[in-house]
Amino acid sequence: MNEPLSVDLNCDLGESYGAYRMGNDEQILPFVTSANIACGFHAGDPGVMRKTVQLCLRHNVAIGAHPGLPDLVGFGRRNMAVSAEEVYDMVIYQMGALQAFVQAEGSTLHHVKPHGALYNMAATDTKLAEAIGEAVYKVNPEVLLYGLAGSELIKAANRLQLRAANEVFADRTYQQDGTLTSRRQPDALITDPDKATNQVLRMVQEGKVQSQQGIEVDIQADTVCIHGDGPQALEFAHHIHETLQREGIALARPNVQRP
Amino acid sequence: MNEPLSVDLNCDLGESYGAYRMGNDEQILPFVTSANIACGFHAGDPGVMRKTVQLCLRHNVAIGAHPGLPDLVGFGRRNMAVSAEEVYDMVIYQMGALQAFVQAEGSTLHHVKPHGALYNMAATDTKLAEAIGEAVYKVNPEVLLYGLAGSELIKAANRLQLRAANEVFADRTYQQDGTLTSRRQPDALITDPDKATNQVLRMVQEGKVQSQQGIEVDIQADTVCIHGDGPQALEFAHHIHETLQREGIALARPNVQRP
Amino acid sequence: MNEPLSVDLNCDLGESYGAYRMGNDEQILPFVTSANIACGFHAGDPGVMRKTVQLCLRHNVAIGAHPGLPDLVGFGRRNMAVSAEEVYDMVIYQMGALQAFVQAEGSTLHHVKPHGALYNMAATDTKLAEAIGEAVYKVNPEVLLYGLAGSELIKAANRLQLRAANEVFADRTYQQDGTLTSRRQPDALITDPDKATNQVLRMVQEGKVQSQQGIEVDIQADTVCIHGDGPQALEFAHHIHETLQREGIALARPNVQRP
Amino acid sequence: MNEPLSVDLNCDLGESYGAYRMGNDEQILPFVTSANIACGFHAGDPGVMRKTVQLCLRHNVAIGAHPGLPDLVGFGRRNMAVSAEEVYDMVIYQMGALQAFVQAEGSTLHHVKPHGALYNMAATDTKLAEAIGEAVYKVNPEVLLYGLAGSELIKAANRLQLRAANEVFADRTYQQDGTLTSRRQPDALITDPDKATNQVLRMVQEGKVQSQQGIEVDIQADTVCIHGDGPQALEFAHHIHETLQREGIALARPNVQRP
Repeated sequence: MNEPLSVDLNCDLGESYGAYRMGNDEQILPFVTSANIACGFHAGDPGVMRKTVQLCLRHNVAIGAHPGLPDLVGFGRRNMAVSAEEVYDMVIYQMGALQAFVQAEGSTLHHVKPHGALYNMAATDTKLAEAIGEAVYKVNPEVLLYGLAGSELIKAANRLQLRAANEVFADRTYQQDGTLTSRRQPDALITDPDKATNQVLRMVQEGKVQSQQGIEVDIQADTVCIHGDGPQALEFAHHIHETLQREGIALARPNVQRP
Repeated sequence: MNEPLSVDLNCDLGESYGAYRMGNDEQILPFVTSANIACGFHAGDPGVMRKTVQLCLRHNVAIGAHPGLPDLVGFGRRNMAVSAEEVYDMVIYQMGALQAFVQAEGSTLHHVKPHGALYNMAATDTKLAEAIGEAVYKVNPEVLLYGLAGSELIKAANRLQLRAANEVFADRTYQQDGTLTSRRQPDALITDPDKATNQVLRMVQEGKVQSQQGIEVDIQADTVCIHGDGPQALEFAHHIHETLQREGIALARPNVQRP
Repeated sequence: MNEPLSVDLNCDLGESYGAYRMGNDEQILPFVTSANIACGFHAGDPGVMRKTVQLCLRHNVAIGAHPGLPDLVGFGRRNMAVSAEEVYDMVIYQMGALQAFVQAEGSTLHHVKPHGALYNMAATDTKLAEAIGEAVYKVNPEVLLYGLAGSELIKAANRLQLRAANEVFADRTYQQDGTLTSRRQPDALITDPDKATNQVLRMVQEGKVQSQQGIEVDIQADTVCIHGDGPQALEFAHHIHETLQREGIALARPNVQRP
Repeated sequence: MNEPLSVDLNCDLGESYGAYRMGNDEQILPFVTSANIACGFHAGDPGVMRKTVQLCLRHNVAIGAHPGLPDLVGFGRRNMAVSAEEVYDMVIYQMGALQAFVQAEGSTLHHVKPHGALYNMAATDTKLAEAIGEAVYKVNPEVLLYGLAGSELIKAANRLQLRAANEVFADRTYQQDGTLTSRRQPDALITDPDKATNQVLRMVQEGKVQSQQGIEVDIQADTVCIHGDGPQALEFAHHIHETLQREGIALARPNVQRP
């Protein structure tokens, strides 16, 4: 008998900073099974981190570190010419900071997912991908690494014997090589909730996604990225959450094994 | 038979930042038994932290986190009206960041010593002292807390059943209430190496220090703060190290028990 | 014949930072005659500063620099033990940065108003007040300095022959010594719009305010601080604006002369 | 009769930050005719900026702003994917901050020279080059812009009718297209003082430089970059300064006209 289908829904949380509010952390939490918490470099501050960790624990949501580039004013979205060594160090630093808040609450860190430009660079740059994988492994080899499905980051995690979760997107279109369509392209975003939900369903149920070129592409969907900004995002999250449940797909932390 | 006398010599390390060099970390390490590593708020950056951790491990020096106020330009030396909650959060954050580098190198964090203005405020402010103690305890109750001998920070640690190390200073004079003479006073500093070394010896051997007022004060000396800046500091460190050894005092991590 | 009564309404603007939005800058601008723009230390970034300057110019609102302490995570609200020299330097830096954006748009800087903890410290600390006054004077002696009515900052400006604007608050109660009731006291805030508006009216028309102790206090009202956060603040601003106009009080930049 | 040959010698100054010292500002000043002062983004702080401005005025050295990327830990040396608009804003901000210190001392800002990665990106990226030129022009069209000789930054300045100073390097080798040899190449640096000085002499006297490929390249030398770090740099600076004087070349601010 087959194991029932299962997928993780993750969301970026804890992106407020000082007096600045961002996101709808409380509202999005019921729809996700894991959360990526900003660690102070691109967003988040120590107080926000603690409160977000506590919030996740109350919702029984798996807690991940969401390290970013040291670029608060750019929200970690601007590529920087950082070396592999610098990336290794900044991931350890941020992962450690978040881990301590999780420890202080009596729990354990579940995963790491790089943020923004760091995520994108690690999807294609082998050296940066390996630096991130090694940082996670050295701090705690039990921690999962989330990365773009099929990317260099996933491959690096596999080589390091880290458990890797292939991340897919509901609201982004794909190219025939399995990468995301660049946001600079007109058709990068999917705005129709049904279309987005169907894309997720096919990725989870069949391991396939229809590319912009019309060709079907194989894709591994261990975790789906859910956005939490704005009322539309919440609706979207609700829709995906409901549809997956109705289809009998279990919503749970990524069910991934070591390679 | 009595246990032989023993004392710890500690030094602030890892205070460089990016392209900026500070301190003589390599030179001071042979003279100390524990080190307090800056965690990025008042000094230090992720790369400096990793390298300093590795350096300490090569010298078999116990590694502590040295959290400070978020004031890089002021080097954490300017008092800030931070709340107890903010202090709790900033200590967890910085302690966690350093702990991860220690973990990544296969070792464990030994202690926490607050830096600069945070250290001074925690010496007299019970609420801040308790916030620091609680932060350390929550992340890891096995970690020692270093604080000014007899200060509120030491008392808070004792109440929390944390192991506390009373810190004394070789090159600072004392008041009859056991506090340090303010740096704004003319006789705050001891510049004569022999006088400084004798002060340390008496504190370690007899548990006494001669105050500025001429009155003897009881003082507990678990660890002695050694400065690492400038060639004179190195000479000083060498002199204290040698004299203590010659007097048969063991130089070792603080030998402190839970209260 | 008497000069008609006139008062300035000022508001803090440009407090967004990177991806973080704060305030209702567009909505509050029709109600004010001068604006204090954050300069990047406690809030604001170069892009926000430029856009806010442009917005003010479109609304013909006088532009002021709003320098704060270097404490982004604390929004410049936490007192810091900064020296007079450090304050002098940080005001010149921030004033200069904003002035350049105003210059680039072909206009001139109208005033400087310190923010948050810097404002409060300068209200009572003569040395810091003089440092701020001197910074403004050295960069441009034509620029006005806004400070708490009757405070040390106003007195320092007067001594320096700077034009000073006494600032009063609509929604804060006063003590019999002319200072604001501390926010830690229960009756610090006035939440009834009519009461607040009446307080402003009396201050402008009669130069008096009823203190918490029931005693009338003399107060000079050159400019009224209007808050721009939240829908209630906008209503409040609208109410004060309308009432002052109905009473025949001209709303205009502070009409202040050199002492 | 011909105008006598003249060239400017410039140096980066004011790169200290808080408790961190960098450079030999006092020692290098006698050898240069203009200085580029860091503005707080990659190095420098308000106090350092003021003191460096005062130091330059005492030595009668022309004062320039040296704006960099917002990357203190990376010393502004890491390329960042900043937009032209972001560059425009960060140059105005930093230029304004330094200008205010110069104003406060009763002098005027002489030039702007972008730092590190911003300088390098602006040498080849037309949009960033134009953003920098426009920022300088908008704040003060009388201010000179220093850029790599023959680069996009110089061309942008010319299009904007800004006065541009072509900068050349004594200790760097050149490619046959007139660009600097990348520091990643083995022969990027010239370490022999005589060779470096001869390169400068030829550039100034003949407008030529021998490229790594052996081909002579035309080059305009309005200003020579002198480094101030380390005792060797001082020797170097002294050697170039002396040789140029002996050859009858006037050392003076760049003698450049609008195009």
